[in-house]
Amino acid sequence: MADDADFMERAYALARDSFEEGGLPIGAVLVRDGRVIGAGHNERIQKGDPIAHGEMACLRDAGRQRSYRDTTLYTTLSPCMMCAGTIVQFGIPRVVIGENRTFGGNEDFLRARGVEVTLLDDPRCKALMKRVIEERPQDWFEDIGAA
Amino acid sequence: MADDADFMERAYALARDSFEEGGLPIGAVLVRDGRVIGAGHNERIQKGDPIAHGEMACLRDAGRQRSYRDTTLYTTLSPCMMCAGTIVQFGIPRVVIGENRTFGGNEDFLRARGVEVTLLDDPRCKALMKRVIEERPQDWFEDIGAA
Repeated sequence: MADDADFMERAYALARDSFEEGGLPIGAVLVRDGRVIGAGHNERIQKGDPIAHGEMACLRDAGRQRSYRDTTLYTTLSPCMMCAGTIVQFGIPRVVIGENRTFGGNEDFLRARGVEVTLLDDPRCKALMKRVIEERPQDWFEDIGAA
Repeated sequence: MADDADFMERAYALARDSFEEGGLPIGAVLVRDGRVIGAGHNERIQKGDPIAHGEMACLRDAGRQRSYRDTTLYTTLSPCMMCAGTIVQFGIPRVVIGENRTFGGNEDFLRARGVEVTLLDDPRCKALMKRVIEERPQDWFEDIGAA
């Protein structure tokens, strides 16, 4: 879908902003009816906040929602177990993932719980992650609990 | 263990604080070497933050940790899928739960991933949750994605 590429572009721009701030380059947007209702990027470095993965910062930004049944979450990187658990808990029915080569493994967990998972395999998302892992590996491994 | 009851007392005090602020009464503390290194309570109502469950607010409060391998998380209420996923992602090896009568179901998910789960079945934790569900059911059901 053309829409998916457009919203991933928004998520990628947030990832790039975070990279330029010295943070981890993972961005996310939450979409309802073709409109972005929440947007965020990883803020572990910027705010010293270990739960602020891109998806979590995005959901926080969206604020309280009565339901997520009509939303799609776009994230530049495949969700970790925290973010995958949150997607299931919140009842988000569809997740579009930029890439899962750098980090992945929870796609089946999501699918088994009824979440539609679309993988774009976006080369720009991969290139940005590759760069941060090469330049600042300690930040990345701390973020995924592998320090 | 006497220690478990003491730390659950701390988590319960946070839950009660949240109740008195008009929020949801779920509190948590993170402990390392017999010392509280993070503490928090649910802040959905107080901050309009849907990811601020008690456990998440506590982990945010603890800030960046290189490792959680030597920590125990105490929570007054059994972790939802977001919080259970976070416990696994962060590699927290032990969780002590105040009660799982009001809400539960992720104990086996945690155990299957190597987390030691201790259930205290604390009557005060149950009584506080019972009261909020009776008095403000809409806040509670929104919080667990069942609104």
